[in-house]
Amino acid sequence: MENIRVELGADSYNIFIGEKILADVAKFIAESNFTKKVLIVADGNTEKFCTGLTAELEIRDINFDVTIIPAGEASKNLREAEKLYTRAIEFGMDRKSPVVAFGGGVVGDLAGFVAATYLRGVPFIQVPTTLLAQVDSSVGGKTAVNHELGKNLIGAFYQPKAVFIDIDTIKTLPERELRCGLGEVVKYGIISDENFFEYLELNVKKILSRDVEVLTHIIKRACEIKADVVSKDEKESGLRRILNFGHTIAHAVEQVTNYEKYRHGEAVAVGMLGAALISYAMGKITFNDVARLKDLLDRLGLITRCADCDVEEMYALTFRDKKTVGGKVNWVLMEDFGKVFITDAVAEVEIKKALKILAS
Amino acid sequence: MENIRVELGADSYNIFIGEKILADVAKFIAESNFTKKVLIVADGNTEKFCTGLTAELEIRDINFDVTIIPAGEASKNLREAEKLYTRAIEFGMDRKSPVVAFGGGVVGDLAGFVAATYLRGVPFIQVPTTLLAQVDSSVGGKTAVNHELGKNLIGAFYQPKAVFIDIDTIKTLPERELRCGLGEVVKYGIISDENFFEYLELNVKKILSRDVEVLTHIIKRACEIKADVVSKDEKESGLRRILNFGHTIAHAVEQVTNYEKYRHGEAVAVGMLGAALISYAMGKITFNDVARLKDLLDRLGLITRCADCDVEEMYALTFRDKKTVGGKVNWVLMEDFGKVFITDAVAEVEIKKALKILAS
Repeated sequence: MENIRVELGADSYNIFIGEKILADVAKFIAESNFTKKVLIVADGNTEKFCTGLTAELEIRDINFDVTIIPAGEASKNLREAEKLYTRAIEFGMDRKSPVVAFGGGVVGDLAGFVAATYLRGVPFIQVPTTLLAQVDSSVGGKTAVNHELGKNLIGAFYQPKAVFIDIDTIKTLPERELRCGLGEVVKYGIISDENFFEYLELNVKKILSRDVEVLTHIIKRACEIKADVVSKDEKESGLRRILNFGHTIAHAVEQVTNYEKYRHGEAVAVGMLGAALISYAMGKITFNDVARLKDLLDRLGLITRCADCDVEEMYALTFRDKKTVGGKVNWVLMEDFGKVFITDAVAEVEIKKALKILAS
Repeated sequence: MENIRVELGADSYNIFIGEKILADVAKFIAESNFTKKVLIVADGNTEKFCTGLTAELEIRDINFDVTIIPAGEASKNLREAEKLYTRAIEFGMDRKSPVVAFGGGVVGDLAGFVAATYLRGVPFIQVPTTLLAQVDSSVGGKTAVNHELGKNLIGAFYQPKAVFIDIDTIKTLPERELRCGLGEVVKYGIISDENFFEYLELNVKKILSRDVEVLTHIIKRACEIKADVVSKDEKESGLRRILNFGHTIAHAVEQVTNYEKYRHGEAVAVGMLGAALISYAMGKITFNDVARLKDLLDRLGLITRCADCDVEEMYALTFRDKKTVGGKVNWVLMEDFGKVFITDAVAEVEIKKALKILAS
């Protein structure tokens, strides 16, 4: 079992990565000073895997309640959160009763928000089951629900007590889900580690055939990079913004297509190519660099176009990014593989030129 | 203007106490690195005082939006929070746009919860306008909304950027509101400062006639004591529990009377006498000590009885306290004036004996 330490002072925690580690989740709960009442939140996709955990809890005489939320983004709202609060109260959970998120990003964000706010915060444990959740929401403590006027507008920074990544869950992940995670994985190579980018280039086949060793390595390395960034800037006031690479355009792509056509990871791939194109137009990287990025994204099966998207509308939407402060968009752009920079001085014409290429 | 520093590392902030300090609130906002869009939350009681602040904001060309919530506990729920999120989004607030709570405990708790969770946290400024809010919620960063199954069950620990206490607001406070605050003020004397308890004994007349100098002193001292406790234990894992003195029975009194008959501060007075009675029964303090406490509460016009409350029901409700962990009630009891201790080993018979006296 691999172990990554996320250093956040009193809120530090470990990410455990391995095969068949649900027993370790139960062991961790049994050995912590938690009240032995566990609220497990799962969705239709992960319900069946839950039994692996509940069986281990039963062996250890730990009470649990499994709440299944409908799979999909629509569950990420205050209404579902309120149902979970009700379950927690009726189940008799106190301040030391843990909430376990057993699922992908939606389950993690919603259950995390409830853990952060029920009784002003109870222990939170994550068992992310999609590659995207494993490499993204495992680190950073971002929890959120959506508002009808926008995604993730309500939330809290709240660190888990531990994260358990079971590689087995990736084996049965649908192709498209796997690709979505790979978009974020590529991002980590670009923002801080050219060697890792190269590792991905050299291991495309093994990644796509879900080689356990290679998957374990890329999840580990992605979590390490994110952990390093987040420990230096927990509340996203500076450095952490680099994690937003590709996301300004990605959010615009998602919104302009009503969150229906593209998944988040797919939109991130489009957004990363867009950011690379802007970086090239500003003379920061070569055209070969852009081509090198596009090549890896293509080989991983990620799209790099959002055909027929309206350029003007997308441009307007870049200003609606949550990270926008005082009306200025903080663009994360490439200086090299493994090195990005942040600027709010990007000419409108350069942005639109890039968007036009993406939309072609 | 008096100034108390609440030491909480990177989350440290100042409490300013004085007369006519609304201009200082506006000045603070103007001089901070906030986006100049301010969401002010007030209620029907404080709406009229708000103009004092908005005029000062206008002078400084700072945009604001005043949202009035219905006065009273019923506003403290997720529905009202959602309305505030909507206002914030429509007003175009970003991560550096401050929320100002202009009112008593309900306004502070609700607006604070929204500030803690909108975009995962925006700057929060408190202008508490009741004595209770000034001496209680000014320090500690507790924000919350109610769930239909219980009070304050949903919330977050979230520190304000500054607190401004305008003594003028107390001059027009209804008698009963003043008394409610005094209940908490007495508590601070008991839990950590006998001199302060004595000061209250010696100044009852001036307190009740709302002498500005005396009021300023008691607010300042109460905030200092709470700040000292909270800086040592921000998340209520140990020492901070002493602030719960009188509250275990108080919550039972409030619940058994459906939150209708007694205000929180009144119930706290009853609860403090109850805790003193238990302390006496356990041989920790003398009967004279109990009488001394009751005497001060009486002179301040606080009630110390909850006539006709059901003892069995109240006893059962003490176990529903939010601070209960693993089914054990953490009782805060008196060892002396200025000194309390925490124990979960209190005989049922002693508790019921005390409750019986209170209910007689």
